Amino acid sequence: MAALHEPLFRGHEWEYVKECIDTGWVSTAGKFVDRFETMLVDYTGISHASAVVNGTAALHVCLMLAGIRQNDEVICQPLTFAATCAAIAYCGGLPHFVDVSPTTLGLCPDALETRLNETAEIVDGVCQNRLTRRRIGAVVCMHTYGHAVELDRLAALCARWHLPLIEDAAESLGSFYQGRHTGHWGVLSAVSFNGNKIVTTGGGGAVLTNDPYLARQAKHLTTTAKLPHRWEFEHDRVGYNYRLPNLNAALGCAQLEQLPNYVAAKRTLAQRYAEAFRDVANVSFFTEPSGCCSNYWLNVILLDHPDRSARDAILTATNDAGLMTRPAWQLMHRLAPYALAPHGDLKVAESLYDRLINIPSSVTLGESHG
Amino acid sequence: MAALHEPLFRGHEWEYVKECIDTGWVSTAGKFVDRFETMLVDYTGISHASAVVNGTAALHVCLMLAGIRQNDEVICQPLTFAATCAAIAYCGGLPHFVDVSPTTLGLCPDALETRLNETAEIVDGVCQNRLTRRRIGAVVCMHTYGHAVELDRLAALCARWHLPLIEDAAESLGSFYQGRHTGHWGVLSAVSFNGNKIVTTGGGGAVLTNDPYLARQAKHLTTTAKLPHRWEFEHDRVGYNYRLPNLNAALGCAQLEQLPNYVAAKRTLAQRYAEAFRDVANVSFFTEPSGCCSNYWLNVILLDHPDRSARDAILTATNDAGLMTRPAWQLMHRLAPYALAPHGDLKVAESLYDRLINIPSSVTLGESHG
Ligand SMILES: Cc1ncc(COP(=O)(O)O)c(C=O)c1O
Ligand SMILES: Cc1ncc(COP(=O)(O)O)c(C=O)c1O
Repeated sequence: MAALHEPLFRGHEWEYVKECIDTGWVSTAGKFVDRFETMLVDYTGISHASAVVNGTAALHVCLMLAGIRQNDEVICQPLTFAATCAAIAYCGGLPHFVDVSPTTLGLCPDALETRLNETAEIVDGVCQNRLTRRRIGAVVCMHTYGHAVELDRLAALCARWHLPLIEDAAESLGSFYQGRHTGHWGVLSAVSFNGNKIVTTGGGGAVLTNDPYLARQAKHLTTTAKLPHRWEFEHDRVGYNYRLPNLNAALGCAQLEQLPNYVAAKRTLAQRYAEAFRDVANVSFFTEPSGCCSNYWLNVILLDHPDRSARDAILTATNDAGLMTRPAWQLMHRLAPYALAPHGDLKVAESLYDRLINIPSSVTLGESHG
Repeated sequence: MAALHEPLFRGHEWEYVKECIDTGWVSTAGKFVDRFETMLVDYTGISHASAVVNGTAALHVCLMLAGIRQNDEVICQPLTFAATCAAIAYCGGLPHFVDVSPTTLGLCPDALETRLNETAEIVDGVCQNRLTRRRIGAVVCMHTYGHAVELDRLAALCARWHLPLIEDAAESLGSFYQGRHTGHWGVLSAVSFNGNKIVTTGGGGAVLTNDPYLARQAKHLTTTAKLPHRWEFEHDRVGYNYRLPNLNAALGCAQLEQLPNYVAAKRTLAQRYAEAFRDVANVSFFTEPSGCCSNYWLNVILLDHPDRSARDAILTATNDAGLMTRPAWQLMHRLAPYALAPHGDLKVAESLYDRLINIPSSVTLGESHG
């Protein structure tokens, strides 16, 4: 079976993990968490990183620190993994869906602008939904399959509407927009190191931010909100046990050492796919939007026309043949928990759902062969 | 430095963890999670176990599945680690503190009965606080430092008051009450495998239950609430990414193999401490309550009389000398986030806070020497 995305361990993974076991430092203390965070800062150029148990937890922290609370609406795209919306729900918020762009597969600035003009107003400096009377608390964009959204336009729109921008960069470690790593434009950004991502810690994630105050808050909140003391256990707020164990960070350090090679291999694979599909009728290979240097986390082919039965025929044939392929996630506005969530016109996402297929994208497939 | 509790790896830890790395199964799939859950079931005799990222997540799941919702009160003890209360807060609930017993250090059945008689009533089958008009949704007891509370009496009281009992068994893996493992009396119970616990997965926890329906719900909720399908991603409720990574489960399998030996060593250490402190004036070593066969997770000495400055003098002297000791956690009703939580008389807990000191308790200290 050719998997959609398989992890690859052939650097210092075993050495670092063994060091944890040999020294007994596998849990909440140990040097690999700090080293992992430093490596993330060095690679992304974003000044602070807090390693956490997974990408979902990272998103939850981003939303809490952006101030999302009971009954807030949070604007996001319907084409995403369910964790984006779940994290909003954990804060008591409700997603408010805005369509994606056909050129990025992520949140569309035009659709966002239209939707805000139609439904939002600023009251006493706060963005409000005129129809529902709820506060709109933030915008979360997601870099679908590793392709960056138009961050400059989205960031400008968010600033104009007093909305903090959060980047769900779970899939875009190694993806750059206008020369800077994704995650730079959001007030806070979330990364995932799940086993299906470009690099993995088993389970893991990180909160990235350029704001030193938010970074301190992220660390405090994710480490049970305990106040420093030689022996007393005192906590000044409801905290979370979201810190990444040292064992998982050790794996992550070895993986981050490989990241530039992995990105290169994945870009090579994407180029091969692009050539292979060039002359195939009725199907096109999705390539990175302008301004984005993508990690091509999961490669995408698109049917020229929405056709659910053609899509399913391809999914069946390929999976039967041992080539793992997958459609887009079911769109979020169609899931039971978000049935009552407000949304604008979502015709691009709905069309993509009927046209999109992910194809095998493991690093090894992109390495030179022959 | 003699630590309070150090992990010990000298069984198959390496072998199993290396197998994960060699096969690439470090994350959400792989055989060690299943094996770890089966081992937990075999050891505890509780029929279902769901492995999760940590004990805090396990408690959160227990409370969600017990139906705790916005504005519920949940009865718990003030002498506990902050996670017990944090998990209540995650559900939108408020702790309602009831005193501990001096013989168990955990929730006191007499205090619970008194408090319920004073403040609660059953309205349409639902337990309500007559004073605050809030629903009382559950009782959480915690087996402090590994010593079981009086589970039979607590379970009977909970049944009488229509309250689900949840056991925070984070510290009591290896502790038995009336011949059965702790966790048996609760509708749901939570275990922790943090690095400071008797066995560790780096970070980890488990939800235990004898109810097959709740067990299925626990698994579904902790694995993003995804519906099974060959390729579609559809989720029928707001789910959580709480599953334990396979890498951590691998470590846990090797650790569980050692658990009976570790319990034996810790019980030997406790016996030595008991003898050593027998004739020491003004201080006594805390021994397991009747009916409980304790794992003696953290050993406890108690000053005969509450004396915070005597306590602090001992803490300072021992820590300065490289023997790690620690007081009880700051009592929960004294923490800022729970300042407004209802509570009964808490004089036992308050006295214990001024008298209690944890002393070094690692497994290796209890192994035969000489
Ligand atoms: C877009 C998106 N957001 C969030 C997540 C959540 O990350 P994790 O699985 O590490 O919790 C993922 C990955 O699973 C994702 O693809
Ligand atoms: C009583 C109690 N409850 C809950 C927890 C939470 O477990 P974890 O640290 O694995 O999240 C712990 C341990 O830290 C604990 O001692």
